[in-house]
Amino acid sequence: MACNHSQWKKPTVWPYEIPMELHKINRQNLLSKYTDCANDVILLQGGVSLHMDDTDMDYEFRQESNFQWTFGVEEPGFYGLLHTGTKQAILFIQRYPEDYSWWMGEIQPPQYFKEKYQVDAAYYVDELVKVLEELKPNKVHVLFGENSDSGHPVCTAKFDGMDKFDIEKSRLYVDISNCRAFKSELELKVMRFCAKVSSDAHVTVMQSVKPGMKEYECASLFKHYVYSKMRSFYTAYSCISASGRGSCTLHYHSNDKEILAGELCLFDMGGEYKRYASDITCTFPSNGKFSDAQKQVYNIVLKAVLAVEEAIKPGVEWTDMHLLAERVMTEGLVELGIIKSGFTMEELEKHRVGAVFFPHGLGHLLGLDVHDVGGYTGTAENRPRLKEFGLKSLRTRRVLESGLVLTVEPGLYFIEVLIDKALNDPEVARFLDADVLNKYRHFGGVRIEDDVAIHADGAEILNRVPRTVEQIEACMAGQDWKALPDPFAKFFRD
Amino acid sequence: MACNHSQWKKPTVWPYEIPMELHKINRQNLLSKYTDCANDVILLQGGVSLHMDDTDMDYEFRQESNFQWTFGVEEPGFYGLLHTGTKQAILFIQRYPEDYSWWMGEIQPPQYFKEKYQVDAAYYVDELVKVLEELKPNKVHVLFGENSDSGHPVCTAKFDGMDKFDIEKSRLYVDISNCRAFKSELELKVMRFCAKVSSDAHVTVMQSVKPGMKEYECASLFKHYVYSKMRSFYTAYSCISASGRGSCTLHYHSNDKEILAGELCLFDMGGEYKRYASDITCTFPSNGKFSDAQKQVYNIVLKAVLAVEEAIKPGVEWTDMHLLAERVMTEGLVELGIIKSGFTMEELEKHRVGAVFFPHGLGHLLGLDVHDVGGYTGTAENRPRLKEFGLKSLRTRRVLESGLVLTVEPGLYFIEVLIDKALNDPEVARFLDADVLNKYRHFGGVRIEDDVAIHADGAEILNRVPRTVEQIEACMAGQDWKALPDPFAKFFRD
Ligand SMILES: [Mn+2]
Ligand SMILES: [Mn+2]
Repeated sequence: MACNHSQWKKPTVWPYEIPMELHKINRQNLLSKYTDCANDVILLQGGVSLHMDDTDMDYEFRQESNFQWTFGVEEPGFYGLLHTGTKQAILFIQRYPEDYSWWMGEIQPPQYFKEKYQVDAAYYVDELVKVLEELKPNKVHVLFGENSDSGHPVCTAKFDGMDKFDIEKSRLYVDISNCRAFKSELELKVMRFCAKVSSDAHVTVMQSVKPGMKEYECASLFKHYVYSKMRSFYTAYSCISASGRGSCTLHYHSNDKEILAGELCLFDMGGEYKRYASDITCTFPSNGKFSDAQKQVYNIVLKAVLAVEEAIKPGVEWTDMHLLAERVMTEGLVELGIIKSGFTMEELEKHRVGAVFFPHGLGHLLGLDVHDVGGYTGTAENRPRLKEFGLKSLRTRRVLESGLVLTVEPGLYFIEVLIDKALNDPEVARFLDADVLNKYRHFGGVRIEDDVAIHADGAEILNRVPRTVEQIEACMAGQDWKALPDPFAKFFRD
Repeated sequence: MACNHSQWKKPTVWPYEIPMELHKINRQNLLSKYTDCANDVILLQGGVSLHMDDTDMDYEFRQESNFQWTFGVEEPGFYGLLHTGTKQAILFIQRYPEDYSWWMGEIQPPQYFKEKYQVDAAYYVDELVKVLEELKPNKVHVLFGENSDSGHPVCTAKFDGMDKFDIEKSRLYVDISNCRAFKSELELKVMRFCAKVSSDAHVTVMQSVKPGMKEYECASLFKHYVYSKMRSFYTAYSCISASGRGSCTLHYHSNDKEILAGELCLFDMGGEYKRYASDITCTFPSNGKFSDAQKQVYNIVLKAVLAVEEAIKPGVEWTDMHLLAERVMTEGLVELGIIKSGFTMEELEKHRVGAVFFPHGLGHLLGLDVHDVGGYTGTAENRPRLKEFGLKSLRTRRVLESGLVLTVEPGLYFIEVLIDKALNDPEVARFLDADVLNKYRHFGGVRIEDDVAIHADGAEILNRVPRTVEQIEACMAGQDWKALPDPFAKFFRD
């Protein structure tokens, strides 16, 4: 892929530094849950460098999310503690041998990190036990539990000498998850920036796609855009740049197919900035013009996005938003003749007919993790995962509250395995017109995904990419798509 | 960084598929070391997906090197075995639940992988013990040991039911390391391709660099180039795009500084293809023209590269190559007046004066790992690491043999910590002219790194980038640098 840099101009604004105030506010929020503890310590262990098997190579360092949220530390091998009584924040840093300085860079003393991260004190990790012994805490709270999306255990702080202290595992993970779910104004600012740059990257990619390109060339361009604009080494998740039938694989990421003329591209890609994620999906025709069939399916999904975003406000249940999207799309499938008419929405919903074409959840909390923590805590604490097809994939069942950020990402997919299962199940097949449906077997899928912040008065969309058919076709033709009518304009804020 | 894709043209050649023959030859080479074992099994466990802490995100999958070498398998979670008697190769694949197919992609049966990887049989991992029980091996050889560069333990195959077999850990790691060190013709082909694309990426970056850019923009462009040309998600190691004094940090990779006019850029970056690494360093002036001082230091390092590459042939000791480079550069430093004249080379070498400015090893074996295995096996088996400054960093002490691939990467660095140590040590300071040396304190560093294959008749350079001052200046000015005189031309083959 040729890349012409002759036009390179020095950007007027480099990615801004995040004020350490952001993490201070995070810490205050967490500590406010511990007013019942006069002399406890909250202890977190930061991420460590991860080597590739036995080799001399490390994966690029990516800070553990809870440590990132609490301290904003960019280096590996730290510990950090908060004192619930004095509210002090203390960092513990790695001690390096002398030759580290010419192999890896200047060795900085604790004082440097105390100032860099604006904490109350900094020591070496080998001083942790001594500091703890001086603090004499009643309890040392550490993270413990399982991530509700992945099922993986959270990183529980460990250190030599732990057995001298009363380690309390029962509450920190839930408390910090409930804090992390709600974004402060400063965090929202970062997420807006990240979503904006990622939107621009999507637009750049859309304007570059041509039949004959490989999918990975598009993912590569996206990554290049966000890395060079935000110095974000990682994207928020593995890029999905699917074309044709690959768009039916929900987490497609082999990205190795050649993009053919007439195919739909489903590009689900998001940059991250200072570990805050964006998560944006655009679906568009490889050659810049929707076919009639593509337009019909696309507009059904677009209608679902709009319906959900108009309905979003504090007090609404996320599960109901999922069902709203499913309903709008089910109606669309009835109009297409894929689902037979004459049935009530209740019947269709009960038999999970819509879920055959929309088998994933409507969206998820978004923050430092792309599938952010807190989906089944807070207002969802007593609402366990549902069992029904489609609904069981919901990553949260929360009641919406101001400060939450979620993705809204309905989709319609013609997945052969699911189509065959449906047609072979008399309980579902009776709702479907097999002849019409079979025509869509090779259609692929459409997903549209926005990043949405919940405010007291409704939804804010953080990203800005072409959404209507007219906008997409104009954008791909290099025209001013932002000047066209935009049904989502009411959701943009700044 | 703007990226103009209007010129995108469909490449005439996509990265070629590696013939499975390559891995078959690798297996034959390994099995040829086990002719004394009539009924043993060699068992390897492939890499597994690595999740990011507790989150729902995985690092992009990167196959474990020994498994890659033996089988070329691209998917996680496999096991593989070789039978020393029948010479059969058998793969064991993951079993996935039904919904994997719409989340992650089509589920393929063992037969698919048997054909894809051209092995004699394929089963599910949960059938491993049954297959082993049928084979009734005398011993099951597994990897065990420490990587000589990183000190990390190699991945030892583990599975439920292991205790039923006689597990032999004593030899496989050394045997496979000794095999991996020598590259077959098919492997060399892949490494030439990888070095060529990586060279072109370097040229693209050099032609794009402008004062005012951030270092990470350059790393990002390099990664974009190799990803979009080779679909290689990872580079062979973390990109070093250092400018100014950052070039003195040998493994610099924060890449966050603005590149200033008049600075040297030291870019040590290499792509990988099908996990085979390249490792190339170019040093050049940010604004396209060397200053006199930059030219002088650069030409000293260039002279060292040429001297080594001319001396390289089977039978030569790598340690002597290091000392040759050190000697050439020490002479250069005498000419600059940094090292006082009038001392013998033996005295200077004995007191490690050159190593103050060249504190790392001359190079390393290169293969699937950028610091490839086998550095201290084979002819280096009884030559342990040296203790002297500089020499202790040698990653191999082998005698050169046809089939080895190594980097040649001498460098001169003005590292303040090392300069101060030297000036404060009377045993070293007496060789140095402090006044002259102090003028170089902020100079930075120069490294030049080639990837060199050893043939019966001498060295082959796999990469092709501008090397002379004239070539570099022409390249950066957009001129035809390949038409200029090239003292390295004699080392190119194809
Ligand atoms: Mn999403
Ligand atoms: Mn190297």
